Amino acid sequence: MILIVTPNPALDLTYTVPDFRPHTGHRVTEVAAQAGGKGVNVTRVLTALGLPATAVLPLGGPTGTAVKAELTAAGLPFVPVRIAGETRRTVAVVDTEDATLLNEPGPHLTTAEWRRVVTETERLLPTAAVLVLSGSLPPGLPEDAYAELLTLAHRNRVPTLLDADGPALTTALAARPTLIKPNAAELRTATGLDDVPAAAAALIERGARAVVASLGPDGLYARDRDSAWRCSPPAPVRGNPTGAGDSCVAALAAGLLGGAGWPAVLPDAVALSAATVHHPRAGHFDTPTYHRLRATTTAHPA
Amino acid sequence: MILIVTPNPALDLTYTVPDFRPHTGHRVTEVAAQAGGKGVNVTRVLTALGLPATAVLPLGGPTGTAVKAELTAAGLPFVPVRIAGETRRTVAVVDTEDATLLNEPGPHLTTAEWRRVVTETERLLPTAAVLVLSGSLPPGLPEDAYAELLTLAHRNRVPTLLDADGPALTTALAARPTLIKPNAAELRTATGLDDVPAAAAALIERGARAVVASLGPDGLYARDRDSAWRCSPPAPVRGNPTGAGDSCVAALAAGLLGGAGWPAVLPDAVALSAATVHHPRAGHFDTPTYHRLRATTTAHPA
Repeated sequence: MILIVTPNPALDLTYTVPDFRPHTGHRVTEVAAQAGGKGVNVTRVLTALGLPATAVLPLGGPTGTAVKAELTAAGLPFVPVRIAGETRRTVAVVDTEDATLLNEPGPHLTTAEWRRVVTETERLLPTAAVLVLSGSLPPGLPEDAYAELLTLAHRNRVPTLLDADGPALTTALAARPTLIKPNAAELRTATGLDDVPAAAAALIERGARAVVASLGPDGLYARDRDSAWRCSPPAPVRGNPTGAGDSCVAALAAGLLGGAGWPAVLPDAVALSAATVHHPRAGHFDTPTYHRLRATTTAHPA
Repeated sequence: MILIVTPNPALDLTYTVPDFRPHTGHRVTEVAAQAGGKGVNVTRVLTALGLPATAVLPLGGPTGTAVKAELTAAGLPFVPVRIAGETRRTVAVVDTEDATLLNEPGPHLTTAEWRRVVTETERLLPTAAVLVLSGSLPPGLPEDAYAELLTLAHRNRVPTLLDADGPALTTALAARPTLIKPNAAELRTATGLDDVPAAAAALIERGARAVVASLGPDGLYARDRDSAWRCSPPAPVRGNPTGAGDSCVAALAAGLLGGAGWPAVLPDAVALSAATVHHPRAGHFDTPTYHRLRATTTAHPA
């Protein structure tokens, strides 16, 4: 089972607003609500792939109840940790041109509430084959909150995949995550380097065992102690890039589960990300695109 | 007691977003949530004035639970009617310049659910001194839904105040509301006339016993069979006009409760509306502004 810890889940609202103009009033013509946050997207994609996945996530308030109801309706396995604060919302205003995103910061987690997240993770780790730590840390948590979970996983001999940004990423490196998946901006923030191979090498120097950098339309760059690989889709993909990184994480987690090498994992991750861009909603992918791209994408030594 | 029927209440979310630009992503720096919808604003203002008020409102889903919790925390008396659909949200994105409003349409009400709203209203009418019908009708209700409530009220000898728009307003006129409060745009839509006195007279011809037209910075124009009055604030007011109309309705309902004439009611309504513009949130008013303006505003025969 792939265990996904999602410290800051959300209720993702998508508002269709045909003629969106700031500083005016709008009647929303269509409202879609879905459980979200990076880890929830990863769980949804893994479940759609038929892989066993379980999300551990703090939930609170009426919005937490709405997230719980949607996860249940979607058949996504999850272990909720009840919190006093209210789970956050995100709003995507979609007009005919593009989307405007509004992300609430999320509830403040108390130390006791975070301890319960850690306890649940520890309880589930003996049955887990991979641990995924995904997304921002909610307000109230120390920057090194992910490091403890990484240490617990390694003690259980469970490989780890960390998808985080800023201090949540850099302070976790010393706990030696098996794999990290920064995007280009996150790599730059973490290292101060513009050069992707050099930045990836720097993060390995600081503790990561492997790095897969997601470079948008340029695909993926993977690096570990021994090798470096590149993989990109045969043609550029157009659509909604929200959630593409999460689908990449799902494919990488599936790769860790199966023990597959870069030449197998990277084309899968590129195909799944691109197929997600082809789907209007995060956490979903276009199945024909996925199968087509997986058959036509190859990784190359860099 | 003033009874307020609010067929389409909402959870009003206010997002503070300092640098709001369409088609980009934003971290919301502050989230405020409050029960809303026109009738809820009226109830909140009446309660703050120390007047007995009770809101009847359909509520459903996690957002309905959130509305219920906020109404309870705010000490606003209400009678919920449970519905299967989910209560709507509104989002106001506030930047340094102005606000951008996104209004969800609201849940579809079944006939059986609306019958329960009618039954609750009928049950409470013998203890009511005024009935206020406020705001849009949710999807699924017939255009004449307000007319039945007006008829029930008049059978109980309870005066009525209707604040509605479009067909919900025009089809209710035959049921002879005691007072209606259109704004200039609503007057125009209902009558096709630009001239406010002529439009008000036309609505009286069609059944309204009295009309108070709210004209924004120009204050109020009141008309009944016998007389016409004007009343405006001594100086223009700046601020957030959201909810100003609802505060006007609250003052007019208080006037019906006390049986006060236009020279007393109109300055109160103008002062309360202006004091609401001075407050950042709908359903609230700036108390010193209210008292100062009430003492310095007078109504004049038109």
